[in-house]
Amino acid sequence: MSIENQLLKLKKEIDQELREFFDLKIKEIKKWRKPSLLKEMAENIRDFTLSSGKRIRPILFYYGYLLAGGRDKKNILKAAISIELIHSYFLIHDDIIDRDDFRRHQLSVHCRYEKKYQDKFRGKSEEAKHFGISMGIIAGDLVSAFGYEILSRSNFPENLKIRAIKKFNRVIADTITGEGIDVFLEMFADFNMARILEMQGYKTAKYTIEGPLHLGAILAGANSNFLNSLTDFAIPLGIAYQIQDDIIGVFGDEKKIGKPVGADLREGKATLLIAKALENANDSQRMIIDSVLGNKEAGLKEIERVRVVIRETESLKYSRNQVKKFSELAGLNLKKIKTSDEESKKFLRELIDFMIGREF
Amino acid sequence: MSIENQLLKLKKEIDQELREFFDLKIKEIKKWRKPSLLKEMAENIRDFTLSSGKRIRPILFYYGYLLAGGRDKKNILKAAISIELIHSYFLIHDDIIDRDDFRRHQLSVHCRYEKKYQDKFRGKSEEAKHFGISMGIIAGDLVSAFGYEILSRSNFPENLKIRAIKKFNRVIADTITGEGIDVFLEMFADFNMARILEMQGYKTAKYTIEGPLHLGAILAGANSNFLNSLTDFAIPLGIAYQIQDDIIGVFGDEKKIGKPVGADLREGKATLLIAKALENANDSQRMIIDSVLGNKEAGLKEIERVRVVIRETESLKYSRNQVKKFSELAGLNLKKIKTSDEESKKFLRELIDFMIGREF
Repeated sequence: MSIENQLLKLKKEIDQELREFFDLKIKEIKKWRKPSLLKEMAENIRDFTLSSGKRIRPILFYYGYLLAGGRDKKNILKAAISIELIHSYFLIHDDIIDRDDFRRHQLSVHCRYEKKYQDKFRGKSEEAKHFGISMGIIAGDLVSAFGYEILSRSNFPENLKIRAIKKFNRVIADTITGEGIDVFLEMFADFNMARILEMQGYKTAKYTIEGPLHLGAILAGANSNFLNSLTDFAIPLGIAYQIQDDIIGVFGDEKKIGKPVGADLREGKATLLIAKALENANDSQRMIIDSVLGNKEAGLKEIERVRVVIRETESLKYSRNQVKKFSELAGLNLKKIKTSDEESKKFLRELIDFMIGREF
Repeated sequence: MSIENQLLKLKKEIDQELREFFDLKIKEIKKWRKPSLLKEMAENIRDFTLSSGKRIRPILFYYGYLLAGGRDKKNILKAAISIELIHSYFLIHDDIIDRDDFRRHQLSVHCRYEKKYQDKFRGKSEEAKHFGISMGIIAGDLVSAFGYEILSRSNFPENLKIRAIKKFNRVIADTITGEGIDVFLEMFADFNMARILEMQGYKTAKYTIEGPLHLGAILAGANSNFLNSLTDFAIPLGIAYQIQDDIIGVFGDEKKIGKPVGADLREGKATLLIAKALENANDSQRMIIDSVLGNKEAGLKEIERVRVVIRETESLKYSRNQVKKFSELAGLNLKKIKTSDEESKKFLRELIDFMIGREF
């Protein structure tokens, strides 16, 4: 089976688990006296969670478990959705913070509430907006509790679950602190911050790759040496993936990336691609970047000018080299992982190419 | 020792544990490359947590453990602060939702950020406000992760910790759904909702009394029969406490209640006291209540008029009877709890009187 089909098959199984979990929640809610509001909230969270995403985190959760010698495929998939719910929690709160009305062509959760109940506020749009934000905060909080619930109720030995919950906490706390730093950076940063930006790649790697792999491996009883060997694979893969993602965001194909090309530039997002270009830029090149960065009105013509600068300053070449360097390191370190499960190793080998080799 | 002194002594010990936890966090943060922002956030959460509150939830957590036969007083106090951090998490998010700039004469967390960084936004007050809300969401999320961290790292057997974490989740999820319902009620409710309001008393009881008692008892290895006997004590106590709190909020002494008398009325808070008054009111009495309820400009004269209506409709008498009925039931059910720890029982007996018998 091709890697695409393997990923798709797993995604379907994971989505089925998610659906079953939410069905259960919605059934539980019927016991309350005011069920319609809660039912609506659970449905909103469910629809938001299922509407997009590749389920890369639960898939890595699953493979971390297999690599470490785990064999209970059914229960590990059930436990793995915990990390996807935590991802929904972060996205719901982030959409409030970033004032994103849409995510992948769907209304974000707080906007869903704002729009649905707008009429009740009789034109007081500020009130409707505050109501939407309030319900978005609450929906995010609720789905975070769901994530913990799934992990703590999963069918694994208690000592392993406690270890997993501790790791879960750390992943969550680190991601939240990272988000806090991001908010500050976007507000107040100057852009000469290549080191901080590399740390952002590092944080993505911890959250998206290492965290899920570790969680699965812990539930299989992995020791710290084994976890370290997963880290050596996960961190370079995550960094390569983040840089590649930044490149695609500026040079990629709108249909494939699911958001407008150059959105990162318009939002003023701090990426290595831009930091490096600014580092090497002369005055006129710098002016071009500054005129587009964080400029929500910038059109395709302006984006194209920035593309030229990114090439001229050799930031594109540098960034591509970084992707190559880190993905090769990931491949090398993958080989070193001591496992009897060669099939999972092969899957992860193909996953590197799939994640990094995406078309532009 | 008087109950007041016992409570104060425990509060001091709990505050010391909280301080040690935050000191540790702030030390950990120094390892990050951008520590000042995170240090500031941890300090904000610490100061907010320590600035107010009677620590009733960790105190009940502690006594639930003792009643169930637990003897490790040092470690149970360390674990008990988990519930106080969850309380901070809820308060921080609630202050955003309720647009409260102050809590007990201190700036709320989101306002602290808004005010501190205001200058950076050069007069764009909407931007500063959004920044404050963003940091408040993040601070709340972070302190929730801290709460889970404390419980999962506490020094108790793994099987008991897993049981406690499951209970912790349930308490948190129920409280969040309760908050969601409240937001809806305040926006859209008519006030003929005495049953829902009684359910609100029930929710307070679950969150403030039953949840903490159960958590402590679970860590001592209590069985479900014992937990049920705690519930029979906790729920009536919580309901009595909530109603008493509502009465004091309208008829009490500003200095003792820590917020302006009648604040609940001005905020339009749904209380049993008001629901019952409206239920029994004639047209002119109803008009008086309607003119004050949710009216942020209402002065002491208007509040006094509502007080008269609450007396005339016998809602005050009814509410006081409810307090009496439920607190007596709590006392009766406290006696039935099977424990060898008579001292803790005596403490809880005095706690009922202290919580209910507060002066007006």
